[in-house]
Amino acid sequence: MKNYKLCGRIWLTLNGETVIGEGKIMLLKNIEQLGSLHKAAETMQMSYRKAWYSVKTMNKNALEPLVILTRGGKDGGSAQITPFGKALLHQFEQYQTAFKKFLQTKNSDGQ
Amino acid sequence: MKNYKLCGRIWLTLNGETVIGEGKIMLLKNIEQLGSLHKAAETMQMSYRKAWYSVKTMNKNALEPLVILTRGGKDGGSAQITPFGKALLHQFEQYQTAFKKFLQTKNSDGQ
Repeated sequence: MKNYKLCGRIWLTLNGETVIGEGKIMLLKNIEQLGSLHKAAETMQMSYRKAWYSVKTMNKNALEPLVILTRGGKDGGSAQITPFGKALLHQFEQYQTAFKKFLQTKNSDGQ
Repeated sequence: MKNYKLCGRIWLTLNGETVIGEGKIMLLKNIEQLGSLHKAAETMQMSYRKAWYSVKTMNKNALEPLVILTRGGKDGGSAQITPFGKALLHQFEQYQTAFKKFLQTKNSDGQ
């Protein structure tokens, strides 16, 4: 299968519901680094509304909150990743690394 | 990440275009087994129109045709998988097996 490239994506489910995939993981990572949902959304060229909705969805579908949003303050509120959110982010990043390696191995085998 | 399940999907691209993923592979497999697009579509509870369009798309995006459709005959035409289609199907099934194993390993590690 020369010239063909194996691609894929991964995500995490809980009781059959998708909790987090590559897009939300990127948002979680930006929240961890920037401490602000506004800044995280801006970095990803995502609307604040979509980012806010993504956080609400992932918090609802996870066993416990991944991000705590607080209102007010000079930056219009903060977004803090919880220890559980950090653990999940770290775990998913390990999965991403392993999956990337899996795809690379298959693609180099097939050449 | 107890209770969380890692899920995913894989597909093949050629020059950045998706050629085939798990749905089209299933169609290709049914065409190989049944020799008829009507029967393959019926087995998958897919409309004939959608199955026909899927074959056209995969043939267009692949380097060479995966399925040859012929009109006429008592069953309203036949669908034959080409040697190249068989090779691609076989290769993708190997990828699917390896990917399933990858997910299983990650899910059992995380318990």
